[in-house]
Amino acid sequence: MDNRSSPWIQTVTLTPPSLKDNTADADRLIQTLKSRLDTPAIDIDPELLKALPTLLRTSAFKVDCIVFKEKHQWVLIGVSDANMATPITGLAIDLGTTRVVLRLLDLADGKTLAESAFDNPQDAIGPDILARIHFVEKENGLKKLNQLIIDGLNKAITKLCATQHLDPEHICALSVAGNTTMTHLFMGLDPRWLIREPYIPVVNTPGIVKAQALGLDVNPLARVFIFPNIGSYFGGDLIAGILFSGIYKKSQTCILVDVGTNAEVVLGNKNWLIACAGAAGPALEGGVTRMGMTAGPGVIDRIRVDPKTLEFKIHTIEDMPPKGICGSGVIDLAAQLFLNGMIDIRGKLVPAICGSKIKNIDGLLHLIIVPASQSATGSDLTISQADLDSLIRSKAAMYTILETLTASVGIAPEELECFYVAGTFGSFINPGSAITIGMLPDLPLDRYQPLGNSSLGGAVLALQTDKYHDRIDQIRDRITYMELNVNQDFMNRFSAAKFLPHTNPKLFPSVKVGDHGLNSPAGD
Amino acid sequence: MDNRSSPWIQTVTLTPPSLKDNTADADRLIQTLKSRLDTPAIDIDPELLKALPTLLRTSAFKVDCIVFKEKHQWVLIGVSDANMATPITGLAIDLGTTRVVLRLLDLADGKTLAESAFDNPQDAIGPDILARIHFVEKENGLKKLNQLIIDGLNKAITKLCATQHLDPEHICALSVAGNTTMTHLFMGLDPRWLIREPYIPVVNTPGIVKAQALGLDVNPLARVFIFPNIGSYFGGDLIAGILFSGIYKKSQTCILVDVGTNAEVVLGNKNWLIACAGAAGPALEGGVTRMGMTAGPGVIDRIRVDPKTLEFKIHTIEDMPPKGICGSGVIDLAAQLFLNGMIDIRGKLVPAICGSKIKNIDGLLHLIIVPASQSATGSDLTISQADLDSLIRSKAAMYTILETLTASVGIAPEELECFYVAGTFGSFINPGSAITIGMLPDLPLDRYQPLGNSSLGGAVLALQTDKYHDRIDQIRDRITYMELNVNQDFMNRFSAAKFLPHTNPKLFPSVKVGDHGLNSPAGD
Repeated sequence: MDNRSSPWIQTVTLTPPSLKDNTADADRLIQTLKSRLDTPAIDIDPELLKALPTLLRTSAFKVDCIVFKEKHQWVLIGVSDANMATPITGLAIDLGTTRVVLRLLDLADGKTLAESAFDNPQDAIGPDILARIHFVEKENGLKKLNQLIIDGLNKAITKLCATQHLDPEHICALSVAGNTTMTHLFMGLDPRWLIREPYIPVVNTPGIVKAQALGLDVNPLARVFIFPNIGSYFGGDLIAGILFSGIYKKSQTCILVDVGTNAEVVLGNKNWLIACAGAAGPALEGGVTRMGMTAGPGVIDRIRVDPKTLEFKIHTIEDMPPKGICGSGVIDLAAQLFLNGMIDIRGKLVPAICGSKIKNIDGLLHLIIVPASQSATGSDLTISQADLDSLIRSKAAMYTILETLTASVGIAPEELECFYVAGTFGSFINPGSAITIGMLPDLPLDRYQPLGNSSLGGAVLALQTDKYHDRIDQIRDRITYMELNVNQDFMNRFSAAKFLPHTNPKLFPSVKVGDHGLNSPAGD
Repeated sequence: MDNRSSPWIQTVTLTPPSLKDNTADADRLIQTLKSRLDTPAIDIDPELLKALPTLLRTSAFKVDCIVFKEKHQWVLIGVSDANMATPITGLAIDLGTTRVVLRLLDLADGKTLAESAFDNPQDAIGPDILARIHFVEKENGLKKLNQLIIDGLNKAITKLCATQHLDPEHICALSVAGNTTMTHLFMGLDPRWLIREPYIPVVNTPGIVKAQALGLDVNPLARVFIFPNIGSYFGGDLIAGILFSGIYKKSQTCILVDVGTNAEVVLGNKNWLIACAGAAGPALEGGVTRMGMTAGPGVIDRIRVDPKTLEFKIHTIEDMPPKGICGSGVIDLAAQLFLNGMIDIRGKLVPAICGSKIKNIDGLLHLIIVPASQSATGSDLTISQADLDSLIRSKAAMYTILETLTASVGIAPEELECFYVAGTFGSFINPGSAITIGMLPDLPLDRYQPLGNSSLGGAVLALQTDKYHDRIDQIRDRITYMELNVNQDFMNRFSAAKFLPHTNPKLFPSVKVGDHGLNSPAGD
């Protein structure tokens, strides 16, 4: 027995054939693997048969076997001389709409070898899913979109392998977690029905596909585990996130929030999982302000207001001169403005407090965060009343989704054992600020846990053991997807959530707002 | 439900998707097929997914599905509009060393559409297995041999389909039965270890392979069932023959004999199967005489001697002028010569009886069967004493193999319920003549049953239902292969069998030889 942890690599020493046992090479190897893996049958990729007889004899019948679990069946996809220690690696892929992240792993022990990321080259066609799906309807549109992502992946794979002095041939197993549209485009499947009622994917459970069939330049026999989806709006990236969070095996009920363009929320425990998604995000990603942008060097990610001077204390990523503000910065800013009376509970700028920081541009109030003299752009970095209004709508939508989902199963937010926040949003956000503006429920801060790239994390797990493949199916099958019904009840909740932090302050006992005199809507 | 007999074609009408059931196209189809086939899982070929959404919608969700059973799992390999009645065909292949036979079937009802045959183009490399295996050791030798048979098959497939106005694309399932070496060359597998101790195939149970991977120009998603082998000397053609004969399900013990270059014999019933093979054949195929040849127009296949005039009454295939004699003709001839005292019990020509039909060429006695004036070749068609000696050795080997195998399980030949004789040999042979010379045991003639091309017959069955695939595995696993030990016991039996019909006439009570005075060895 080999003592490596991975089930994918099995080192076996065969009894050489004899006149008394003339079992064929392949059948001899499979027999041994079957008893090793305790499985009734193992397929062998027919391509492998060609090299097998010579390999077995030159390696003196001691070989490293690479096996992978297809849907219900193990398959032997690689055999190499055990005396040669051929590197055997895996690649986990987070297939994002805007950014694609790769992590190269040693399949033998699951350790990370290297990681890289690149902007999704489909962005040239359209920055969002919808634009890309419409492009599919043009001649060769699907082919072009598919080629863009496959070419992009192949280039990134070649580079990533080069950093480790490896050949892409050494990648024998891959896993891919992406949203439903990206997964379709990656597989070359027509996504047009995803955006037409009744919103039907081509496939929910793609399972395991040969890398060669997908056009990936890795080992031609490599297998690709593709995360399943539940529907158009709940993709494999989220299922990977659920797997990574471990929420599906918790005794206590937890919640997982992934905020991108949409807010996707999963609530549950080891017994049940309920999910919903809703438009909440644009204000929280790049879109909120003209100066808004995704996280990167020079972007303001944290901000404080000095309660005495009302001066802004900003922090930028990599401490570079400020050029914009990202979602977490905007939330910090709004919380600080609110706590210091610079905006009222409707999110309206309070000129009496803000003083000279306010300027009127084309009839719209703007708050200057960084004056032109200190900004990297040479212009004032400002946030307008419209930006703030947009943020308020986003935070209200977010809170309403959370409230609606928890209420649907009769759970109060304070009963949530753990609140996982996925993605870059989760990594950068200051939960205290999010609570202050009433975007997230008023839980003790230690219940908030950033997950990082949970989609990639789930993809990595899928390369660790086949047991996760079954769990992924179980997770998919266990999720109840709740359509967010935008009915009167929802709208009432939404209206109440459009105040800072909420019309019902009892929901946010920790948010202590000083008496700034002007801290209620004008006219109250 | 459709009422077609084939399990491979399932016509299904799906409930179209709705907001209440947004299951993906592929998963929707698979769900229905799973309940139809009562199986826990069905794979779908990823290539199919590309066309699926449009196809489902243009066919109003009523489709013909082509499914095939891979080793332990059904797989969906084709979907077409059920309103279009796309032809769906299968191809059974008997992959012979010298001749390849194809039968095109309608997969829906299993009916034969057309049949064709061609000479194995690998003959250009070498007429026999051994020459071809040695050729593999030359540069690109394996590739060339593989290409020859694949190209030959592709040409034949194109022609065969054209006769039915079908496109080879319409062939969705294939089955291939060949000996172990031919199967290796067909799959592009190195056969060199088959002829080196301990005689190991690359694979015993190739199972099901994609036609595309084999280079066959049929539907790219078509699956090929490849018959398993037991070892170098017991190939898929014989397993197909066992399947076709039905011997594996008989209550009574039966025997199956396939005579080619080797004599392959299987003895058994529904409880057990025992097999062996031995060199017996060359004299019985083309090789026995200089005028000997395989069956074809103008070849003498039946012969009688007029007891009064000792004239030969010949029958030729298609009644063409005689140009040679095939195995069945030689056996007829020997039996008739023996019954009429023209050869003695050692098979030696008796000049006193043969008279002017004998001529001495270079010191060797020849018997003129057809004088030059009546032959198609313009020369005398003769059989020499050496030819007769060779036949006697062959028939003795054949009988000894049968006797050894039956004796090994304690069965007397007369206990055999049925004696199946496969191949062209079985189709042409006159069992009475074979009994007369002591080649086959003295059973009532109605127990002898010619099987025809049992290898092709078995291949056809493998395309009828997946149940046969399991039976084929069971047959393979149930066979005990007996190495023919050429020990003293075997040699004693062989010596006794070198007489006509045998040294022990009690074994052949039906053979009544007239008293020709000279019918015992000279000197007795």
